[in-house]
Amino acid sequence: MNPGTSSATPTIGVFDSGFGGLTVLRALINRLPQARFAFLGDTARLPYGSKSRRTIARYAAQSAQFLVREQGAQYLVIACNTASALALDAIQDAVSVPVLGVIEPGASAARAASKTGDVLVVATDATVHSHAYLAACHARGLRAIEKACPLLVPLVEEGWTNHPVTAEVIEIYLNELRAEAGERGFNPDALVLGCTHYPLLRSLFEQAVRPGASVIDSAESTAEAAVQLINGHAATPAPGAAAETEVRCFATDSVEKFERLGSRFLGRPTGNVELVDLGG
Amino acid sequence: MNPGTSSATPTIGVFDSGFGGLTVLRALINRLPQARFAFLGDTARLPYGSKSRRTIARYAAQSAQFLVREQGAQYLVIACNTASALALDAIQDAVSVPVLGVIEPGASAARAASKTGDVLVVATDATVHSHAYLAACHARGLRAIEKACPLLVPLVEEGWTNHPVTAEVIEIYLNELRAEAGERGFNPDALVLGCTHYPLLRSLFEQAVRPGASVIDSAESTAEAAVQLINGHAATPAPGAAAETEVRCFATDSVEKFERLGSRFLGRPTGNVELVDLGG
Repeated sequence: MNPGTSSATPTIGVFDSGFGGLTVLRALINRLPQARFAFLGDTARLPYGSKSRRTIARYAAQSAQFLVREQGAQYLVIACNTASALALDAIQDAVSVPVLGVIEPGASAARAASKTGDVLVVATDATVHSHAYLAACHARGLRAIEKACPLLVPLVEEGWTNHPVTAEVIEIYLNELRAEAGERGFNPDALVLGCTHYPLLRSLFEQAVRPGASVIDSAESTAEAAVQLINGHAATPAPGAAAETEVRCFATDSVEKFERLGSRFLGRPTGNVELVDLGG
Repeated sequence: MNPGTSSATPTIGVFDSGFGGLTVLRALINRLPQARFAFLGDTARLPYGSKSRRTIARYAAQSAQFLVREQGAQYLVIACNTASALALDAIQDAVSVPVLGVIEPGASAARAASKTGDVLVVATDATVHSHAYLAACHARGLRAIEKACPLLVPLVEEGWTNHPVTAEVIEIYLNELRAEAGERGFNPDALVLGCTHYPLLRSLFEQAVRPGASVIDSAESTAEAAVQLINGHAATPAPGAAAETEVRCFATDSVEKFERLGSRFLGRPTGNVELVDLGG
Protein backbone atom coordinates (compact mmCIF):
# COMPACT_ATOMS: atom_id res chain seq x y z
CA MET A 1 0.00 0.00 0.00
CA ASN A 2 2.96 2.30 0.66
CA PRO A 3 3.58 4.19 -2.57
CA GLY A 4 7.13 4.76 -3.71
CA THR A 5 8.36 8.12 -2.46
CA SER A 6 11.34 10.37 -2.94
CA SER A 7 12.41 13.51 -1.18
CA ALA A 8 11.30 15.55 -4.20
CA THR A 9 7.72 14.27 -4.00
CA PRO A 10 6.88 13.88 -0.34
CA THR A 11 3.65 12.19 0.71
CA ILE A 12 1.70 14.31 3.18
CA GLY A 13 -1.10 12.89 5.29
CA VAL A 14 -3.83 15.30 6.34
CA PHE A 15 -6.31 14.35 9.04
CA ASP A 16 -9.57 15.80 10.30
CA SER A 17 -12.54 14.43 12.22
CA GLY A 18 -14.71 15.63 9.30
CA PHE A 19 -14.10 17.36 6.00
CA GLY A 20 -13.50 20.94 7.17
CA GLY A 21 -9.77 20.18 7.09
CA LEU A 22 -10.02 20.18 3.29
CA THR A 23 -9.46 23.96 3.57
CA VAL A 24 -6.02 23.13 5.00
CA LEU A 25 -5.44 20.57 2.24
CA ARG A 26 -6.38 23.23 -0.32
CA ALA A 27 -3.81 25.66 1.09
CA LEU A 28 -1.20 22.85 1.14
CA ILE A 29 -1.86 21.92 -2.51
CA ASN A 30 -1.41 25.57 -3.51
CA ARG A 31 2.01 25.65 -1.88
CA LEU A 32 3.18 22.09 -2.61
CA PRO A 33 1.56 21.16 -5.92
CA GLN A 34 4.02 18.35 -6.63
CA ALA A 35 3.55 16.60 -3.30
CA ARG A 36 1.27 13.60 -2.90
CA PHE A 37 -1.61 13.99 -0.46
CA ALA A 38 -3.77 11.53 1.46
CA PHE A 39 -6.65 13.09 3.40
CA LEU A 40 -8.63 11.16 6.01
CA GLY A 41 -11.90 12.39 7.50
CA ASP A 42 -12.99 10.28 10.50
CA THR A 43 -16.61 11.09 9.68
CA ALA A 44 -18.05 7.98 11.36
CA ARG A 45 -16.93 9.20 14.76
CA LEU A 46 -17.47 12.95 14.55
CA PRO A 47 -18.03 15.22 16.33
CA TYR A 48 -14.82 14.81 18.33
CA GLY A 49 -15.68 17.97 20.32
CA SER A 50 -18.17 16.24 22.60
CA LYS A 51 -15.90 13.28 23.39
CA SER A 52 -13.34 12.74 26.16
CA ARG A 53 -9.63 13.45 25.66
CA ARG A 54 -8.83 9.74 25.95
CA THR A 55 -11.33 8.75 23.27
CA ILE A 56 -10.18 11.54 20.94
CA ALA A 57 -6.54 10.48 21.42
CA ARG A 58 -7.40 6.88 20.52
CA TYR A 59 -9.37 7.87 17.41
CA ALA A 60 -6.72 10.34 16.24
CA ALA A 61 -3.87 7.85 16.78
CA GLN A 62 -5.70 5.21 14.72
CA SER A 63 -6.29 7.75 11.96
CA ALA A 64 -2.66 8.89 11.99
CA GLN A 65 -1.46 5.28 11.78
CA PHE A 66 -3.70 4.67 8.78
CA LEU A 67 -2.17 7.64 6.96
CA VAL A 68 1.42 6.67 7.80
CA ARG A 69 1.28 2.87 7.57
CA GLU A 70 -1.32 2.37 4.84
CA GLN A 71 -0.80 5.51 2.78
CA GLY A 72 2.92 6.06 3.30
CA ALA A 73 2.63 9.57 4.70
CA GLN A 74 6.06 11.05 5.56
CA TYR A 75 4.53 14.11 7.23
CA LEU A 76 1.24 14.51 9.06
CA VAL A 77 -0.86 17.65 9.25
CA ILE A 78 -3.63 17.51 11.87
CA ALA A 79 -6.21 19.74 10.19
CA CYS A 80 -8.61 19.44 13.12
CA ASN A 81 -8.68 21.91 15.96
CA THR A 82 -10.05 19.45 18.53
CA ALA A 83 -7.45 16.78 17.74
CA SER A 84 -4.69 19.41 17.63
CA ALA A 85 -5.77 20.73 21.02
CA LEU A 86 -6.28 17.42 22.80
CA ALA A 87 -4.35 14.70 20.98
CA LEU A 88 -1.19 16.08 19.36
CA ASP A 89 1.05 14.30 21.87
CA ALA A 90 -0.83 11.03 21.43
CA ILE A 91 -0.48 11.28 17.64
CA GLN A 92 3.25 12.03 17.92
CA ASP A 93 3.62 8.95 20.13
CA ALA A 94 1.67 6.80 17.66
CA VAL A 95 3.73 7.54 14.55
CA SER A 96 7.38 8.25 13.76
CA VAL A 97 6.94 11.06 11.21
CA PRO A 98 6.82 14.82 11.89
CA VAL A 99 3.35 15.98 13.00
CA LEU A 100 1.98 19.50 12.70
CA GLY A 101 -1.28 20.80 14.23
CA VAL A 102 -3.33 23.87 13.31
CA ILE A 103 -3.21 25.78 16.59
CA GLU A 104 0.46 26.73 16.95
CA PRO A 105 0.74 28.08 13.36
CA GLY A 106 -2.41 30.17 13.88
CA ALA A 107 -1.05 31.64 17.10
CA SER A 108 2.34 32.33 15.47
CA ALA A 109 0.65 34.16 12.59
CA ALA A 110 -1.33 36.23 15.10
CA ARG A 111 1.92 37.09 16.90
CA ALA A 112 3.45 38.24 13.60
CA ALA A 113 0.37 40.26 12.62
CA SER A 114 -0.52 42.01 15.89
CA LYS A 115 1.06 45.31 16.85
CA THR A 116 -1.02 45.79 20.01
CA GLY A 117 -0.43 42.26 21.33
CA ASP A 118 -4.17 41.74 21.76
CA VAL A 119 -5.97 39.22 19.54
CA LEU A 120 -9.44 37.75 19.16
CA VAL A 121 -10.08 34.09 18.37
CA VAL A 122 -13.29 32.67 16.91
CA ALA A 123 -13.76 28.90 16.95
CA THR A 124 -16.19 26.11 17.73
CA ASP A 125 -17.50 25.52 21.22
CA ALA A 126 -15.18 22.53 21.72
CA THR A 127 -12.06 24.42 20.65
CA VAL A 128 -12.86 27.40 22.85
CA HIS A 129 -13.60 25.06 25.75
CA SER A 130 -10.10 23.56 25.38
CA HIS A 131 -8.51 27.05 25.59
CA ALA A 132 -5.76 25.77 23.31
CA TYR A 133 -5.56 29.05 21.35
CA LEU A 134 -5.50 31.04 24.59
CA ALA A 135 -2.53 28.99 25.82
CA ALA A 136 -0.71 29.24 22.48
CA CYS A 137 -1.26 33.02 22.40
CA HIS A 138 -0.12 33.44 26.00
CA ALA A 139 3.02 31.45 25.20
CA ARG A 140 3.82 34.07 22.56
CA GLY A 141 3.19 37.05 24.83
CA LEU A 142 -0.22 37.82 23.36
CA ARG A 143 -3.42 38.52 25.24
CA ALA A 144 -6.40 36.79 23.67
CA ILE A 145 -10.16 36.59 23.96
CA GLU A 146 -11.83 33.48 22.56
CA LYS A 147 -15.42 33.20 21.41
CA ALA A 148 -17.44 30.16 20.41
CA CYS A 149 -19.48 30.76 17.25
CA PRO A 150 -21.59 27.61 17.01
CA LEU A 151 -23.79 28.87 14.16
CA LEU A 152 -20.97 29.31 11.67
CA VAL A 153 -20.26 25.65 10.86
CA PRO A 154 -23.94 24.95 10.08
CA LEU A 155 -24.12 28.15 7.98
CA VAL A 156 -21.07 27.05 5.95
CA GLU A 157 -22.48 23.54 5.55
CA GLU A 158 -25.79 25.02 4.38
CA GLY A 159 -23.77 26.79 1.65
CA TRP A 160 -24.58 30.28 2.96
CA THR A 161 -20.97 31.43 2.73
CA ASN A 162 -21.84 34.71 1.06
CA HIS A 163 -25.30 35.25 2.52
CA PRO A 164 -26.71 38.29 4.34
CA VAL A 165 -27.83 36.11 7.26
CA THR A 166 -24.27 34.85 7.73
CA ALA A 167 -22.91 38.41 7.54
CA GLU A 168 -25.43 39.40 10.23
CA VAL A 169 -24.49 36.48 12.46
CA ILE A 170 -20.77 37.31 12.12
CA GLU A 171 -21.53 40.95 12.98
CA ILE A 172 -23.41 39.86 16.11
CA TYR A 173 -20.60 37.57 17.25
CA LEU A 174 -17.92 40.22 16.58
CA ASN A 175 -19.93 42.88 18.39
CA GLU A 176 -20.10 40.60 21.44
CA LEU A 177 -16.33 40.03 21.21
CA ARG A 178 -15.65 43.77 20.88
CA ALA A 179 -17.87 44.51 23.87
CA GLU A 180 -15.90 42.02 25.96
CA ALA A 181 -12.61 43.46 24.65
CA GLY A 182 -13.75 46.95 25.64
CA GLU A 183 -14.78 45.84 29.13
CA ARG A 184 -11.43 44.14 29.68
CA GLY A 185 -9.35 47.01 28.26
CA PHE A 186 -8.08 45.04 25.26
CA ASN A 187 -7.17 46.71 21.98
CA PRO A 188 -7.27 43.82 19.51
CA ASP A 189 -5.92 44.22 15.99
CA ALA A 190 -5.96 40.60 14.79
CA LEU A 191 -8.70 38.00 14.50
CA VAL A 192 -7.78 34.31 14.32
CA LEU A 193 -10.19 32.05 12.40
CA GLY A 194 -9.74 29.00 14.63
CA CYS A 195 -11.93 26.51 12.79
CA THR A 196 -11.27 24.74 9.51
CA HIS A 197 -14.73 25.73 8.21
CA TYR A 198 -14.15 29.44 8.65
CA PRO A 199 -11.79 30.08 5.69
CA LEU A 200 -14.95 29.89 3.55
CA LEU A 201 -16.19 32.93 5.49
CA ARG A 202 -12.91 34.83 5.23
CA SER A 203 -14.24 37.62 3.01
CA LEU A 204 -17.25 38.16 5.30
CA PHE A 205 -14.89 38.36 8.28
CA GLU A 206 -12.60 40.77 6.43
CA GLN A 207 -15.59 43.03 5.76
CA ALA A 208 -16.67 42.83 9.41
CA VAL A 209 -13.39 43.60 11.22
CA ARG A 210 -12.26 47.15 11.90
CA PRO A 211 -10.06 48.86 9.29
CA GLY A 212 -6.42 47.89 9.74
CA ALA A 213 -7.18 44.68 11.66
CA SER A 214 -5.75 41.42 10.31
CA VAL A 215 -7.76 38.26 9.70
CA ILE A 216 -5.61 35.19 10.35
CA ASP A 217 -6.67 32.15 8.36
CA SER A 218 -5.22 29.24 10.33
CA ALA A 219 -5.49 26.97 7.26
CA GLU A 220 -3.08 29.27 5.41
CA SER A 221 -0.82 29.61 8.45
CA THR A 222 -0.71 25.83 8.88
CA ALA A 223 0.12 25.27 5.21
CA GLU A 224 2.92 27.82 5.48
CA ALA A 225 4.29 26.07 8.56
CA ALA A 226 4.10 22.73 6.72
CA VAL A 227 6.19 24.10 3.85
CA GLN A 228 8.83 25.25 6.32
CA LEU A 229 8.77 21.87 8.08
CA ILE A 230 9.17 19.96 4.82
CA ASN A 231 11.87 22.31 3.52
CA GLY A 232 13.76 21.61 6.71
CA HIS A 233 13.66 17.86 6.01
CA ALA A 234 13.88 17.52 2.22
CA ALA A 235 14.63 19.31 -1.01
CA THR A 236 11.91 21.76 -1.98
CA PRO A 237 9.79 20.25 -4.71
CA ALA A 238 9.90 22.19 -7.93
CA PRO A 239 6.70 24.15 -8.57
CA GLY A 240 4.32 22.36 -10.92
CA ALA A 241 0.77 22.64 -12.18
CA ALA A 242 -1.79 22.15 -9.41
CA ALA A 243 -3.83 19.97 -11.75
CA GLU A 244 -1.15 17.28 -11.50
CA THR A 245 -1.28 17.02 -7.74
CA GLU A 246 -2.11 13.52 -6.57
CA VAL A 247 -4.82 13.66 -3.90
CA ARG A 248 -6.66 10.71 -2.37
CA CYS A 249 -9.50 11.28 0.06
CA PHE A 250 -10.67 8.73 2.61
CA ALA A 251 -13.59 8.80 5.03
CA THR A 252 -14.84 6.42 7.70
CA ASP A 253 -18.52 7.14 6.90
CA SER A 254 -20.81 9.67 5.22
CA VAL A 255 -18.96 9.57 1.88
CA GLU A 256 -22.00 11.16 0.23
CA LYS A 257 -21.93 14.32 2.34
CA PHE A 258 -18.14 14.46 2.05
CA GLU A 259 -18.27 14.36 -1.76
CA ARG A 260 -21.22 16.77 -1.94
CA LEU A 261 -19.79 19.46 0.35
CA GLY A 262 -16.07 18.71 0.17
CA SER A 263 -15.42 20.33 -3.20
CA ARG A 264 -16.43 23.71 -1.76
CA PHE A 265 -13.80 23.36 0.92
CA LEU A 266 -11.15 21.93 -1.38
CA GLY A 267 -11.82 24.35 -4.23
CA ARG A 268 -11.94 21.44 -6.69
CA PRO A 269 -13.72 18.06 -6.85
CA THR A 270 -12.70 15.65 -4.11
CA GLY A 271 -12.80 12.76 -6.58
CA ASN A 272 -14.12 9.44 -5.31
CA VAL A 273 -13.91 9.41 -1.55
CA GLU A 274 -12.79 5.95 -0.42
CA LEU A 275 -14.48 4.37 2.60
CA VAL A 276 -12.15 2.92 5.23
CA ASP A 277 -12.91 1.02 8.42
CA LEU A 278 -10.65 1.90 11.34
CA GLY A 279 -12.56 -0.35 13.74
CA GLY A 280 -13.91 0.75 17.11
CA MET B 1 -34.20 -0.14 41.04
CA ASN B 2 -37.74 -0.68 39.85
CA PRO B 3 -39.90 1.75 41.82
CA GLY B 4 -43.27 0.56 43.07
CA THR B 5 -45.98 1.44 40.58
CA SER B 6 -49.74 1.42 40.40
CA SER B 7 -52.14 1.97 37.54
CA ALA B 8 -52.98 5.41 38.95
CA THR B 9 -49.35 6.59 38.81
CA PRO B 10 -47.83 5.05 35.71
CA THR B 11 -44.10 5.35 35.09
CA ILE B 12 -43.39 6.67 31.62
CA GLY B 13 -39.96 6.37 30.02
CA VAL B 14 -39.05 9.03 27.48
CA PHE B 15 -36.06 8.53 25.21
CA ASP B 16 -34.09 10.78 22.87
CA SER B 17 -30.61 10.69 21.37
CA GLY B 18 -30.08 14.16 22.91
CA PHE B 19 -32.14 16.51 25.03
CA GLY B 20 -34.50 17.94 22.37
CA GLY B 21 -37.03 15.32 23.45
CA LEU B 22 -37.48 17.29 26.67
CA THR B 23 -40.08 19.29 24.71
CA VAL B 24 -42.09 16.06 24.47
CA LEU B 25 -41.53 15.38 28.18
CA ARG B 26 -42.78 18.89 28.93
CA ALA B 27 -45.98 18.29 26.97
CA LEU B 28 -46.41 14.93 28.74
CA ILE B 29 -45.98 16.46 32.20
CA ASN B 30 -48.63 19.08 31.36
CA ARG B 31 -51.10 16.34 30.52
CA LEU B 32 -50.09 13.68 33.07
CA PRO B 33 -48.81 15.63 36.06
CA GLN B 34 -49.25 12.70 38.45
CA ALA B 35 -47.29 10.23 36.37
CA ARG B 36 -43.66 9.42 37.11
CA PHE B 37 -41.19 10.17 34.32
CA ALA B 38 -37.71 8.89 33.51
CA PHE B 39 -36.00 10.65 30.60
CA LEU B 40 -32.86 9.29 28.94
CA GLY B 41 -30.74 11.28 26.51
CA ASP B 42 -28.13 9.09 24.78
CA THR B 43 -25.86 12.12 24.46
CA ALA B 44 -22.62 10.13 24.28
CA ARG B 45 -23.65 8.61 20.97
CA LEU B 46 -25.45 11.48 19.24
CA PRO B 47 -26.03 12.43 16.51
CA TYR B 48 -28.00 9.33 15.54
CA GLY B 49 -28.81 10.90 12.16
CA SER B 50 -25.43 10.13 10.63
CA LYS B 51 -25.37 6.50 11.76
CA SER B 52 -26.61 3.31 10.09
CA ARG B 53 -30.06 1.86 10.82
CA ARG B 54 -28.47 -1.17 12.49
CA THR B 55 -26.38 0.94 14.84
CA ILE B 56 -29.31 3.21 15.69
CA ALA B 57 -31.49 0.17 16.41
CA ARG B 58 -28.87 -1.25 18.78
CA TYR B 59 -28.41 2.06 20.64
CA ALA B 60 -32.15 2.68 20.88
CA ALA B 61 -32.88 -0.85 22.12
CA GLN B 62 -30.23 -0.51 24.86
CA SER B 63 -31.71 2.82 25.89
CA ALA B 64 -35.24 1.43 25.94
CA GLN B 65 -34.14 -1.53 28.05
CA PHE B 66 -32.52 0.84 30.56
CA LEU B 67 -35.77 2.76 30.95
CA VAL B 68 -37.92 -0.38 31.30
CA ARG B 69 -35.62 -2.66 33.32
CA GLU B 70 -33.74 -0.16 35.46
CA GLN B 71 -36.34 2.59 35.78
CA GLY B 72 -39.52 0.53 35.71
CA ALA B 73 -41.10 2.31 32.76
CA GLN B 74 -44.52 0.85 31.89
CA TYR B 75 -44.82 2.94 28.72
CA LEU B 76 -42.13 4.24 26.41
CA VAL B 77 -42.27 7.43 24.36
CA ILE B 78 -39.55 7.67 21.72
CA ALA B 79 -39.09 11.45 21.62
CA CYS B 80 -36.51 11.23 18.84
CA ASN B 81 -37.41 11.51 15.19
CA THR B 82 -34.45 9.46 13.93
CA ALA B 83 -35.08 6.59 16.35
CA SER B 84 -38.84 6.75 15.66
CA ALA B 85 -38.17 6.59 11.92
CA LEU B 86 -35.53 3.87 11.92
CA ALA B 87 -35.77 1.86 15.12
CA LEU B 88 -39.38 1.70 16.38
CA ASP B 89 -39.68 -2.00 15.47
CA ALA B 90 -36.35 -2.82 17.12
CA ILE B 91 -37.43 -1.03 20.29
CA GLN B 92 -40.78 -2.84 20.34
CA ASP B 93 -38.90 -6.14 19.99
CA ALA B 94 -36.51 -5.22 22.82
CA VAL B 95 -39.12 -4.42 25.48
CA SER B 96 -42.55 -5.71 26.45
CA VAL B 97 -44.27 -2.38 27.19
CA PRO B 98 -46.26 -0.19 24.78
CA VAL B 99 -44.01 2.04 22.67
CA LEU B 100 -45.00 5.30 20.98
CA GLY B 101 -42.93 7.29 18.50
CA VAL B 102 -43.25 10.94 17.44
CA ILE B 103 -43.90 10.54 13.73
CA GLU B 104 -47.30 8.83 13.59
CA PRO B 105 -48.92 11.29 16.06
CA GLY B 106 -47.55 14.24 14.04
CA ALA B 107 -48.95 12.84 10.81
CA SER B 108 -52.31 12.10 12.46
CA ALA B 109 -52.53 15.66 13.75
CA ALA B 110 -51.75 16.95 10.25
CA ARG B 111 -54.53 14.73 8.85
CA ALA B 112 -56.97 16.19 11.38
CA ALA B 113 -55.90 19.78 10.71
CA SER B 114 -55.63 19.85 6.92
CA LYS B 115 -58.66 20.62 4.77
CA THR B 116 -56.75 20.62 1.46
CA GLY B 117 -54.93 17.33 2.13
CA ASP B 118 -51.58 18.98 1.39
CA VAL B 119 -49.06 19.47 4.20
CA LEU B 120 -45.52 20.73 4.65
CA VAL B 121 -43.01 19.10 7.00
CA VAL B 122 -39.88 20.75 8.38
CA ALA B 123 -37.29 18.55 10.09
CA THR B 124 -33.59 17.77 10.35
CA ASP B 125 -31.63 16.46 7.41
CA ALA B 126 -31.62 12.92 8.82
CA THR B 127 -35.39 12.84 9.38
CA VAL B 128 -36.12 14.21 5.90
CA HIS B 129 -33.67 11.71 4.41
CA SER B 130 -35.63 8.87 6.06
CA HIS B 131 -38.90 10.11 4.46
CA ALA B 132 -40.71 8.77 7.51
CA TYR B 133 -43.13 11.73 7.64
CA LEU B 134 -43.79 11.43 3.91
CA ALA B 135 -44.73 7.77 4.34
CA ALA B 136 -46.89 8.48 7.41
CA CYS B 137 -48.68 11.29 5.57
CA HIS B 138 -49.23 9.15 2.46
CA ALA B 139 -50.67 6.40 4.65
CA ARG B 140 -53.30 8.93 5.79
CA GLY B 141 -54.17 10.13 2.28
CA LEU B 142 -52.16 13.34 2.59
CA ARG B 143 -49.70 14.75 0.09
CA ALA B 144 -46.59 16.14 1.77
CA ILE B 145 -43.44 18.06 0.97
CA GLU B 146 -40.55 17.69 3.39
CA LYS B 147 -37.73 20.18 3.90
CA ALA B 148 -34.52 19.85 5.88
CA CYS B 149 -33.79 22.97 7.95
CA PRO B 150 -30.31 22.28 9.32
CA LEU B 151 -29.79 25.75 10.77
CA LEU B 152 -32.70 25.59 13.18
CA VAL B 153 -31.27 23.18 15.77
CA PRO B 154 -28.07 25.26 16.15
CA LEU B 155 -30.16 28.46 16.37
CA VAL B 156 -32.28 26.94 19.16
CA GLU B 157 -29.18 25.66 20.98
CA GLU B 158 -27.62 29.14 20.68
CA GLY B 159 -30.73 30.42 22.50
CA TRP B 160 -31.91 32.55 19.58
CA THR B 161 -35.47 31.30 19.83
CA ASN B 162 -37.00 34.74 19.53
CA HIS B 163 -34.32 36.42 17.42
CA PRO B 164 -34.68 38.34 14.14
CA VAL B 165 -32.01 36.16 12.50
CA THR B 166 -34.02 33.05 13.32
CA ALA B 167 -37.21 34.65 12.00
CA GLU B 168 -35.35 35.48 8.77
CA VAL B 169 -33.99 31.93 8.43
CA ILE B 170 -37.48 30.48 8.96
CA GLU B 171 -38.86 32.87 6.34
CA ILE B 172 -36.20 31.74 3.83
CA TYR B 173 -36.90 28.06 4.46
CA LEU B 174 -40.68 28.53 4.22
CA ASN B 175 -40.34 30.56 1.02
CA GLU B 176 -38.35 27.70 -0.52
CA LEU B 177 -41.03 25.25 0.61
CA ARG B 178 -43.82 27.44 -0.80
CA ALA B 179 -41.98 27.77 -4.11
CA GLU B 180 -41.73 23.99 -4.37
CA ALA B 181 -45.39 23.63 -3.37
CA GLY B 182 -46.37 26.11 -6.12
CA GLU B 183 -44.31 24.28 -8.75
CA ARG B 184 -45.87 20.95 -7.82
CA GLY B 185 -49.44 22.27 -7.63
CA PHE B 186 -49.82 21.71 -3.89
CA ASN B 187 -52.08 23.85 -1.74
CA PRO B 188 -50.74 23.23 1.78
CA ASP B 189 -52.65 24.41 4.84
CA ALA B 190 -50.69 22.66 7.62
CA LEU B 191 -47.04 22.71 8.66
CA VAL B 192 -45.64 19.85 10.76
CA LEU B 193 -42.74 20.71 13.09
CA GLY B 194 -40.93 17.38 12.72
CA CYS B 195 -38.04 17.93 15.12
CA THR B 196 -38.10 17.99 18.92
CA HIS B 197 -36.15 21.28 18.96
CA TYR B 198 -38.71 23.15 16.88
CA PRO B 199 -41.45 23.61 19.52
CA LEU B 200 -39.20 26.37 20.91
CA LEU B 201 -39.68 28.14 17.55
CA ARG B 202 -43.42 27.58 17.43
CA SER B 203 -44.38 31.25 17.76
CA LEU B 204 -41.94 32.26 15.01
CA PHE B 205 -43.41 29.57 12.75
CA GLU B 206 -46.95 30.69 13.57
CA GLN B 207 -46.03 34.23 12.55
CA ALA B 208 -44.44 32.98 9.33
CA VAL B 209 -47.16 30.68 7.96
CA ARG B 210 -50.02 31.98 5.85
CA PRO B 211 -53.21 33.07 7.66
CA GLY B 212 -55.45 30.09 8.35
CA ALA B 213 -52.65 27.53 8.12
CA SER B 214 -52.09 25.23 11.11
CA VAL B 215 -48.76 24.64 12.81
CA ILE B 216 -48.56 21.07 14.12
CA ASP B 217 -46.27 20.67 17.10
CA SER B 218 -45.38 16.97 17.09
CA ALA B 219 -44.35 17.15 20.76
CA GLU B 220 -47.94 18.15 21.65
CA SER B 221 -49.41 15.56 19.26
CA THR B 222 -47.23 12.83 20.75
CA ALA B 223 -48.17 13.76 24.31
CA GLU B 224 -51.85 13.67 23.31
CA ALA B 225 -51.39 10.23 21.76
CA ALA B 226 -49.60 9.06 24.92
CA VAL B 227 -52.56 10.12 27.07
CA GLN B 228 -54.89 8.13 24.85
CA LEU B 229 -52.57 5.11 24.96
CA ILE B 230 -52.32 5.20 28.75
CA ASN B 231 -56.06 5.78 29.20
CA GLY B 232 -56.61 2.68 27.12
CA HIS B 233 -54.46 0.63 29.50
CA ALA B 234 -55.06 2.13 32.92
CA ALA B 235 -57.26 4.39 34.97
CA THR B 236 -56.76 8.06 34.18
CA PRO B 237 -54.61 9.64 36.86
CA ALA B 238 -56.37 12.41 38.71
CA PRO B 239 -55.07 15.86 37.78
CA GLY B 240 -52.55 17.21 40.26
CA ALA B 241 -50.12 20.08 40.62
CA ALA B 242 -47.31 19.94 38.05
CA ALA B 243 -44.85 20.80 40.78
CA GLU B 244 -45.39 17.36 42.29
CA THR B 245 -44.47 15.46 39.16
CA GLU B 246 -41.56 13.11 39.72
CA VAL B 247 -39.03 13.49 36.89
CA ARG B 248 -35.58 11.90 36.71
CA CYS B 249 -33.26 12.75 33.86
CA PHE B 250 -30.40 10.54 32.70
CA ALA B 251 -27.71 11.12 30.07
CA THR B 252 -24.88 9.00 28.74
CA ASP B 253 -22.50 12.01 28.44
CA SER B 254 -22.46 15.82 28.27
CA VAL B 255 -24.44 16.28 31.49
CA GLU B 256 -23.23 19.90 31.62
CA LYS B 257 -24.78 20.91 28.29
CA PHE B 258 -27.92 18.90 29.11
CA GLU B 259 -28.40 20.76 32.41
CA ARG B 260 -27.51 24.15 30.90
CA LEU B 261 -29.83 23.95 27.87
CA GLY B 262 -32.35 21.38 29.02
CA SER B 263 -34.38 23.68 31.23
CA ARG B 264 -35.32 25.79 28.19
CA PHE B 265 -36.74 22.71 26.51
CA LEU B 266 -38.41 21.35 29.64
CA GLY B 267 -39.77 24.70 30.80
CA ARG B 268 -38.41 24.08 34.28
CA PRO B 269 -35.04 22.98 35.76
CA THR B 270 -33.98 19.48 34.77
CA GLY B 271 -32.62 18.87 38.26
CA ASN B 272 -29.44 16.85 38.56
CA VAL B 273 -28.93 14.88 35.39
CA GLU B 274 -27.62 11.43 36.28
CA LEU B 275 -24.84 9.93 34.17
CA VAL B 276 -25.40 6.34 33.00
CA ASP B 277 -23.14 3.99 31.05
CA LEU B 278 -24.96 1.85 28.50
CA GLY B 279 -21.71 0.33 27.19
CA GLY B 280 -20.75 0.20 23.52
